[in-house]
Amino acid sequence: MKTVGVIAEYNPFHNGHKYHLQQVREQTKADVLVVIMSGNYVQRGEPALFDKWERTRQALYNGADIIIEMPFNVAVQPAHLFAKGAILQLQALGVEEISFGVEHPEYDFAALAKEASIISEAFSNYKQTFASIYYTQLAEKTGIKLESANDILALEYAKAIYEQNALIKIHPIKRIAAGYHDRELPINMNNAEVNIASATAIRQHLHDQRVVRYLPSSMDLTKSYPVKNFAVHWWPLLHYRLQTASLTELQQIYQLNDGLEHLFQETSYQVNEFQAFFDKVKSKRYSNARIQRTLLYTLLNVTTNEMIVDECNLQNRLLGYTSIGRAWLKRNKKIMKKPLISKINKDLRKNKYALQYRVDKIYQQFTECKQEQNIGRKPIDIENSLTIIKK
Amino acid sequence: MKTVGVIAEYNPFHNGHKYHLQQVREQTKADVLVVIMSGNYVQRGEPALFDKWERTRQALYNGADIIIEMPFNVAVQPAHLFAKGAILQLQALGVEEISFGVEHPEYDFAALAKEASIISEAFSNYKQTFASIYYTQLAEKTGIKLESANDILALEYAKAIYEQNALIKIHPIKRIAAGYHDRELPINMNNAEVNIASATAIRQHLHDQRVVRYLPSSMDLTKSYPVKNFAVHWWPLLHYRLQTASLTELQQIYQLNDGLEHLFQETSYQVNEFQAFFDKVKSKRYSNARIQRTLLYTLLNVTTNEMIVDECNLQNRLLGYTSIGRAWLKRNKKIMKKPLISKINKDLRKNKYALQYRVDKIYQQFTECKQEQNIGRKPIDIENSLTIIKK
Repeated sequence: MKTVGVIAEYNPFHNGHKYHLQQVREQTKADVLVVIMSGNYVQRGEPALFDKWERTRQALYNGADIIIEMPFNVAVQPAHLFAKGAILQLQALGVEEISFGVEHPEYDFAALAKEASIISEAFSNYKQTFASIYYTQLAEKTGIKLESANDILALEYAKAIYEQNALIKIHPIKRIAAGYHDRELPINMNNAEVNIASATAIRQHLHDQRVVRYLPSSMDLTKSYPVKNFAVHWWPLLHYRLQTASLTELQQIYQLNDGLEHLFQETSYQVNEFQAFFDKVKSKRYSNARIQRTLLYTLLNVTTNEMIVDECNLQNRLLGYTSIGRAWLKRNKKIMKKPLISKINKDLRKNKYALQYRVDKIYQQFTECKQEQNIGRKPIDIENSLTIIKK
Repeated sequence: MKTVGVIAEYNPFHNGHKYHLQQVREQTKADVLVVIMSGNYVQRGEPALFDKWERTRQALYNGADIIIEMPFNVAVQPAHLFAKGAILQLQALGVEEISFGVEHPEYDFAALAKEASIISEAFSNYKQTFASIYYTQLAEKTGIKLESANDILALEYAKAIYEQNALIKIHPIKRIAAGYHDRELPINMNNAEVNIASATAIRQHLHDQRVVRYLPSSMDLTKSYPVKNFAVHWWPLLHYRLQTASLTELQQIYQLNDGLEHLFQETSYQVNEFQAFFDKVKSKRYSNARIQRTLLYTLLNVTTNEMIVDECNLQNRLLGYTSIGRAWLKRNKKIMKKPLISKINKDLRKNKYALQYRVDKIYQQFTECKQEQNIGRKPIDIENSLTIIKK
């Protein structure tokens, strides 16, 4: 059975994702598609619009066979650590090929990665803000200037594979229709081909009736409630925490250093609203995503130690599977480098899964029914979804 | 000028307090009444119903001449530390006599205090839960069994005076009409004499039209907004904090020890509502007030070090005065042991007033207009209030 891996956030799951899964299956002749999906928080440092269970369900109904949770300490990281952790996870599962959507599938990402690795060694003080210098240097060496977010992420996957000596092949697929950061829904409404919008646009227009055509039919927005708005509902907790924490406590937080802890606290005393706060703390020195992630770490009290991305610190938790996935799991269980977790017992909760448990407890408070996210939750088991895919 | 001190919470200020101030002035022939008043939090571990400025205003309109803030680390403490701190404050001001309301003004509290001090030495492990044993022992020695909360508090004042060798005389005044813990407004509505209800009953019935007759005419409930409800609005912050704090962080909190930190955190994972939480954590070992205070310390991230009650750790901040008070201040400024604070500058905010500043920042979030409590706030200056008192 050929097993192909996909790395995703599905925030939320939409037709573009469905199309991608179909293409992966067709182009790679995969028998089984394994998805490493972010849990309840995404890379930009925000809570996912729908919880990990709902997003798992949608992915299983629309082409995925197995969903594995990407832990918080991988999911909420800059691109290179996000990629590193995800590839470690896929390796532990024994996946032999991965596929991702890019703007330029014709690029040789494996070769670029090799060149890029040398550059990144030269930049021992490499920081995200050096990104543009970095890609300029890469362009000088290779003649290829990476510009789209998807191409850059693809390079990070390829680099992680190269650095880990992983036996994982790369299969880039051309993205269609929507740009990654498009904030608006597509204008051409009558063209059946373009019922794909970006996740960004869908999040922006979730309460717009037009959004339905960009989502798979399995998704009923009248029944699934998005998580409560960060700026309105989560902010008071962050505000409170910044106002009450000691500086020593703030300095324990991952990436909250270099004076950022003073800036955050001082600003928390001056403003009452999230947007005003963000406008005051953002800078040229850090990307907005980096700031937003640091705010999320602060809110969730995530320490540097908890965010280490290595094999010891990663758990592969099974969120769901179809009947095909179930058969694959049965067959491959014994050859996996690390056992999959399908149930959070007391030991996991208190130790290896402690960070996940904690951050999900806060997420739970902002869901419609405050549904427990971990204890007593079993993987979602869906009968063969292929009939739905073929529609 | 004879100066008499009063120690109060005024939560909220009501006719009983007005009556008490009148009696103090009459019985002691005081020229000036100085009140040490809790700031934005009270002894039971709750936010005060109205902020310290509104309560200052009411007290000044109804008989007090000078209001000094009782700092958080005195105000939110068990009775013996509350009394210790308040007497230290009054000593620093040079007050020569204090007056308080009791059930039994005929008791010789100074003599009782002397006897009680010996008992408390024998109880080197004295804890609040030992209170009943303590008062039984005192009764065996003196024949007087203290039972009412006011008499017990009076004893604590007398003990603090004795232990500090303070040159402060005691003037107990008989309380009338309402019991300290009465939860209901008085039934006898037609008797003009009983327009006194307990603060507890007034807080319980704040939105009841009947409550107006128990409040001074200076207080307009249609214009002053009470702080937001603890169980509804403050609880989510406490819940969040308990769910995200590390045990090491919780162990820094004042009085959060002996396993209470585990109990609080574990319970925070099991319940969503404050009442359910409180019901699960209360016990025979600790009084409800002790538990509530510990919850407040946790919410406000108050450490053991910050709660030390001694002369170094106490600041006398001036909240307001009448014209009589102003004259007294002018005359006595130079002979005070410690300068009064009338303005919070940057140094105070960051150092000696840091705890106050922080806890007031959280209080501010739960007031109607989120009004800044400290920076830029000047003492309230009210023209001679005697005309109002005489009415």
